[in-house]
Amino acid sequence: MKKIAVDAMGGDYAPQAIVEGVNQALADFSDIEVQLYGDESKIKQYLTATERVSIIHTDEKINSDDEPTKAIRKKKNASMVLAAKAVKDGEADAVLSAGNTGALLAAGFFIVGRIKNIDRPGLMSTLPTTDGKGFDMLDLGANAENTAHHLHQYAILGSFYARNVRGIEKPRVGLLNNGTESSKGDPLRKEAYDLLVADESLNFVGNVEARDLMDGVADVVVTDGFTGNAVLKAIEGTAMGIMGLLKNAIVGGGLRAKLGAFLLKDNLRGLKKQLNYSDVGGAVLFGVKAPVVKTHGSSDAKAVYSTIRQIRTMLETDVVAQTAREFSEE
Amino acid sequence: MKKIAVDAMGGDYAPQAIVEGVNQALADFSDIEVQLYGDESKIKQYLTATERVSIIHTDEKINSDDEPTKAIRKKKNASMVLAAKAVKDGEADAVLSAGNTGALLAAGFFIVGRIKNIDRPGLMSTLPTTDGKGFDMLDLGANAENTAHHLHQYAILGSFYARNVRGIEKPRVGLLNNGTESSKGDPLRKEAYDLLVADESLNFVGNVEARDLMDGVADVVVTDGFTGNAVLKAIEGTAMGIMGLLKNAIVGGGLRAKLGAFLLKDNLRGLKKQLNYSDVGGAVLFGVKAPVVKTHGSSDAKAVYSTIRQIRTMLETDVVAQTAREFSEE
Repeated sequence: MKKIAVDAMGGDYAPQAIVEGVNQALADFSDIEVQLYGDESKIKQYLTATERVSIIHTDEKINSDDEPTKAIRKKKNASMVLAAKAVKDGEADAVLSAGNTGALLAAGFFIVGRIKNIDRPGLMSTLPTTDGKGFDMLDLGANAENTAHHLHQYAILGSFYARNVRGIEKPRVGLLNNGTESSKGDPLRKEAYDLLVADESLNFVGNVEARDLMDGVADVVVTDGFTGNAVLKAIEGTAMGIMGLLKNAIVGGGLRAKLGAFLLKDNLRGLKKQLNYSDVGGAVLFGVKAPVVKTHGSSDAKAVYSTIRQIRTMLETDVVAQTAREFSEE
Repeated sequence: MKKIAVDAMGGDYAPQAIVEGVNQALADFSDIEVQLYGDESKIKQYLTATERVSIIHTDEKINSDDEPTKAIRKKKNASMVLAAKAVKDGEADAVLSAGNTGALLAAGFFIVGRIKNIDRPGLMSTLPTTDGKGFDMLDLGANAENTAHHLHQYAILGSFYARNVRGIEKPRVGLLNNGTESSKGDPLRKEAYDLLVADESLNFVGNVEARDLMDGVADVVVTDGFTGNAVLKAIEGTAMGIMGLLKNAIVGGGLRAKLGAFLLKDNLRGLKKQLNYSDVGGAVLFGVKAPVVKTHGSSDAKAVYSTIRQIRTMLETDVVAQTAREFSEE
């Protein structure tokens, strides 16, 4: 039985979206057990599942504007903190939250704990490509600074994930850079390039540019946390901006445009689905001793469900434990 | 008379697109004179303008895959090099090319020359926002590394441009960062934040995130060249990817979808126009002694025309000379 500790109080639509996602996941996956941390009476309003689920009541929770490290230290009974502690104490195998990202990273670092020999755990997500296959990028902002050695570790971590969880036999690893030539970039990129090209266990395909990410130029893309965060947000912002413009063009476009949009409805919905991150699960803090997974603050029940499915696959393939063994042997 | 030196041989559709853009600009603007550098017989095939235009013939040109600095040094008679030299020698006031970006940057640095006290010229573009106003971002990749002092200079340069060329009285300056709180970022960002907040001549609005750029969160956004390059390319790649998906959804969507798309045609064209960089001109290498402007390699005649219009405004408002005076007094 895979035990998943869920912070029921994090995110814009908590606890409803969280609990509804859990209901669905418990119905579909008979090999998981969910522990819901949070306000019992509120959780009960939405909880329809009756088996393999428990509620651990707490009044305390971390808010989206709390200072992360301080919140983790001071709010010892916050739902997120208790969920992370359950993993640390061996009562759960993984933790899921839609709450304050910084606090969840801090809970991952300080409560769940780093894997031996992994210096800087990185935040990783599977982002959409036009062919629907997606790519994994890390670090998306767990760190503000990284060394070339960290980037090398991210390549190994990302490859592990792509192979085990996404079933890609030889994941193509790309180094995000300001040009594709091997000589490109700042000293960090040049040093990382040398480390990646020398590691024969990786399928390193060289430097990749942000322009080509959505075309699926690599299965795993490594970068420092500052750049990764900026690129992720640029992708999100542009996608949201264009979809908004498209909507305005239709809404403000008169009867003819509205009829056109009606006829195109299914196709536009398909497009939105292709761009929707909620289908592929949440962002994984990779490099800590158990799956610590952040789903978007605006996650609906479906996104929560997808993230539980992702966590289940991570536990089934034992990707974190394998990673830990690999790095401990170094 | 404003004299513009144009590299007629750079870009994917040279010389046709370049010369046709020049024809149109000469017809619309009676106060400009254009010098076309390149293959005379090829240029003549497309040149319809007869006044205020001259051809300076050369057989040599820089290719898109030439190593920039080496190309500038060795190909002394390349069309781009001759255009830059014309500016240096006072025969022209500005240079325009759609060719090899790195080579044009090198020509700007080494031939046109830096403004006194500006350490690292930065590449700046006006990028689209959903409200149609746009924002200026720099450095977009003239440098692989920058200091906080450079970022401060970019804020001054960008504000100058936004005020003089775009007519924004008090341009809002944002520092691209991994969060909006003042304490965010790596040491570079923290140091830059302190410099920006202390400079009372700037309308500094604090840290901005890449997610909010398209919403017009600032008029001028400053960042280091590595991050700026990655964010620019992420925006371009996402916009192209989504427009491609939209097209596929329609083309692959059967009769109903095609009819819908037909009815929405004008609206979709409007959307494309809003996202089109070619309307706002090219990327300016800011911090050198004259306007050195790069228009996209895939520029059509219209993009070339818009870039000439932009250069004309830059010359009319004397923004570069003003910048030079400002910095020389430091």
